[in-house]
Amino acid sequence: MAAREVKKELFGRLRGILDAKYILTTEEQLKPFECDGLSVYKALPIVAVLPGTVEEVQAIIKVCYSLRIPLVTRGAGTGLSAGAKPNPEGLLLVMTRLNKILSINTITQTAEVQPGVRNLAISEATKEHDLFYAPDPSSQIACSIGGNIAENAGGVHCLKYGLTVHNIIQLKGFTMEGEPVTLGSGGLDNVGFNLQALIIGSEGMLMVVTEITVKLLPLPRHTEVMLAAFDSVETAGNAVNKIIAAGVIPGGLEMMDNNAICAAEDFAQAGYPRDAAAILLIEIDGSSSNVEEQLQTTREVLQHAGVVSVKVARNAQERALFWKGRKNAFPAVGRISPDYYCMDGTIPRKSLAEVLGYISALSNEYGFAVANVFHAGDGNLHPLILFDANIDGQLECVEAMGAKILEKCIDVGGTITGEHGVGLEKIRQMPLQFTDGEINQFHDLKAALDPANLLNPGKNIPLLKHCQEYRALAKNLVPNRLLTQQSPD
Amino acid sequence: MAAREVKKELFGRLRGILDAKYILTTEEQLKPFECDGLSVYKALPIVAVLPGTVEEVQAIIKVCYSLRIPLVTRGAGTGLSAGAKPNPEGLLLVMTRLNKILSINTITQTAEVQPGVRNLAISEATKEHDLFYAPDPSSQIACSIGGNIAENAGGVHCLKYGLTVHNIIQLKGFTMEGEPVTLGSGGLDNVGFNLQALIIGSEGMLMVVTEITVKLLPLPRHTEVMLAAFDSVETAGNAVNKIIAAGVIPGGLEMMDNNAICAAEDFAQAGYPRDAAAILLIEIDGSSSNVEEQLQTTREVLQHAGVVSVKVARNAQERALFWKGRKNAFPAVGRISPDYYCMDGTIPRKSLAEVLGYISALSNEYGFAVANVFHAGDGNLHPLILFDANIDGQLECVEAMGAKILEKCIDVGGTITGEHGVGLEKIRQMPLQFTDGEINQFHDLKAALDPANLLNPGKNIPLLKHCQEYRALAKNLVPNRLLTQQSPD
Repeated sequence: MAAREVKKELFGRLRGILDAKYILTTEEQLKPFECDGLSVYKALPIVAVLPGTVEEVQAIIKVCYSLRIPLVTRGAGTGLSAGAKPNPEGLLLVMTRLNKILSINTITQTAEVQPGVRNLAISEATKEHDLFYAPDPSSQIACSIGGNIAENAGGVHCLKYGLTVHNIIQLKGFTMEGEPVTLGSGGLDNVGFNLQALIIGSEGMLMVVTEITVKLLPLPRHTEVMLAAFDSVETAGNAVNKIIAAGVIPGGLEMMDNNAICAAEDFAQAGYPRDAAAILLIEIDGSSSNVEEQLQTTREVLQHAGVVSVKVARNAQERALFWKGRKNAFPAVGRISPDYYCMDGTIPRKSLAEVLGYISALSNEYGFAVANVFHAGDGNLHPLILFDANIDGQLECVEAMGAKILEKCIDVGGTITGEHGVGLEKIRQMPLQFTDGEINQFHDLKAALDPANLLNPGKNIPLLKHCQEYRALAKNLVPNRLLTQQSPD
Repeated sequence: MAAREVKKELFGRLRGILDAKYILTTEEQLKPFECDGLSVYKALPIVAVLPGTVEEVQAIIKVCYSLRIPLVTRGAGTGLSAGAKPNPEGLLLVMTRLNKILSINTITQTAEVQPGVRNLAISEATKEHDLFYAPDPSSQIACSIGGNIAENAGGVHCLKYGLTVHNIIQLKGFTMEGEPVTLGSGGLDNVGFNLQALIIGSEGMLMVVTEITVKLLPLPRHTEVMLAAFDSVETAGNAVNKIIAAGVIPGGLEMMDNNAICAAEDFAQAGYPRDAAAILLIEIDGSSSNVEEQLQTTREVLQHAGVVSVKVARNAQERALFWKGRKNAFPAVGRISPDYYCMDGTIPRKSLAEVLGYISALSNEYGFAVANVFHAGDGNLHPLILFDANIDGQLECVEAMGAKILEKCIDVGGTITGEHGVGLEKIRQMPLQFTDGEINQFHDLKAALDPANLLNPGKNIPLLKHCQEYRALAKNLVPNRLLTQQSPD
């Protein structure tokens, strides 16, 4: 069939499945879905559909499979690596109407939810049972649990409670052939190969998920938040290691540098010290005596680690204020610069001071200011590179600088993502992290589960023929001077 | 080449890689390796090799690949599902000489180890830094970390600290083609598809692992062990749920029924109450004030849950004694019965009382006594079915009864393994847990990573053509009367 007939056939069959108002085909209708949170990558799909039942999802998948139409699944569209960018030849499967919490079981401490349920909605619904769902990406008010699974989302509480992959016990959904699959179980173990963990973080490229059983945890009875100020970024980085080495696992352990502090303070009046080179926000949760004890240990560790000042929030209001600054750091930085580029990489905690120093050197070299706001306990960095996209060439320079930061993450034994995924954004860095043999294994896996290559094709894993080119490109992005100065040590 | 020439060629090439004393070929040499801990399955390989370096491992794999010789990797041989049973046409790769702890990093709280390192040896080596490796299978004194990865091993502490898959951050090794692969990273996130989680628990069928980075945790400062006795198994099962619902996550939460209590008491004089229908062993760890508080909460919950008596170990000696009974429960049961069949299944905690009742009914129906000793907090059951293998037909009856227990686990939403894997033992139950479509996906995955099907072939995933037969078999194993009595409720 010619492309036009295929399209006609597709639309006809979709109308047999869904009410016409849930089938979007005009440019006007499709425009809101052209990109996710990384808006430099955009495209219109040939059609977007919003199914309301699992049966509709299955039928839509089967139609796509039989007509060989690429299928991209989209949650709330808050992703930051273009993982949900539509395929211009494909169908966009929008999961927002599948937004029901199906059951909450207080004995097994689990909830069954549909993929379109917002992350925060789970904890809101389980609060009356003193339970919560731990992974809490900054976008949790808007992002969907289905999207969290696609990207293996993290968040402030993941140091203590794990990433998405550690908090899901069962997934149901469909292969690209429309075959139903159940992965994981009501128990803790997986039988056969651990397909469930493979699916989580696979950016919608291996199956379509329609039902999720999440683990719930008892809400901590007591919480304290500590604000620690330092006169150097390195001292703050080392303090992070010392806190954890002392046996304290904070519920949250976040770091901000001076640029981020000042931007957040202007925006949120959180009570941050503007003259600090860096601050740590340390949340300690548990039972009240336990929190008291850990607070004391942390205070002692901080004193030995050279802290300048320590402040414990006096009440719930001040705790919320301390967090308000951190949670609004991204929009706050947005006010002080026309544009910013939000990076996401992960390093072993021991290299915090070294990598922050490298970023600072790059900042001088390229002439772009950087604000650092990140999950220090996890070693999950989020440097925000400040620039002006209206000035010709700046975006390209910033991308080059960002690429250098990711390469440094690899050099110290870390990875090129933390919680945002690879999508299209980081596909060029994949060949730096992986050999051709490893990339090949990813392709083989993809082919095993989606032989027709219809599920979100072209994302996450670069084609082998491009890998050499991307590696060569990486070598030539910055003056050699800087490379030899800062590289191995 | 004819089989004989292939063998000659193989031996010749192996001698080019390894010292002859590490190449075992005679029946006498091979006999000790004919089975793992599940000795009803046995076979001699054509050769067993004991490499001493990673380079030797790679060279051996390449030889096997080029000659199309099946390869089975073996750790300490303590597995309980015949996962390490040699292939009679194949080579057995014995990892015991790769037993070095390569590094311990106290800042990142990680250790790099070789696969032949014993599980307990890691915690012994890191004790001086107040760190430990959490997953602790009962065989931890002997079993190797490589084997733990193959089976995704659990243990007493896994309720609080997670299974093997939650405590590994990086794996290095080789594909069957001899291609080096690095999975995971020094950071917490995985990039690309989560191959690392897929490998863990894959029973040596997807790659050969040669280096492992494990997570270490701070040793708890304080520990208390509580022994709670109940006059019914159901009451004990419900108490488990109530403890966890109260927000207490014990370091260990084990249950034993009367048969297990009496056997353990005869053997270890642990101070267990012989007249109790069931006991719970509850270990609470953390800082001292925190332990005190959780102990108090647990005590209150137990009172409300109908406990008969509660005893807290008075000192380290009594704590060790309480655990001694549990840890020796399997050999203790071995003394009261000529043979026993150790089952392993996992269920959602909420179904504990129901499934224990079902096992008790099966025990009456089949006329075999059962001793229950298990990780109650995880819902990971270990019924031991007592029988005499010298009486004709008993083993077959016991296997049938065991199969019914596993099917019940599936019925209530659990799985057919907890920590022992599928291997050969449970391959017949796989089609009860999975549809043909799902089994097919496992085969596709296997083919993607090991296209020549040389890595531990024939284990874990049944051939599709046998699935119907296994399902039909399952239906006819027990009197229908029992099925209708006990099934859905």
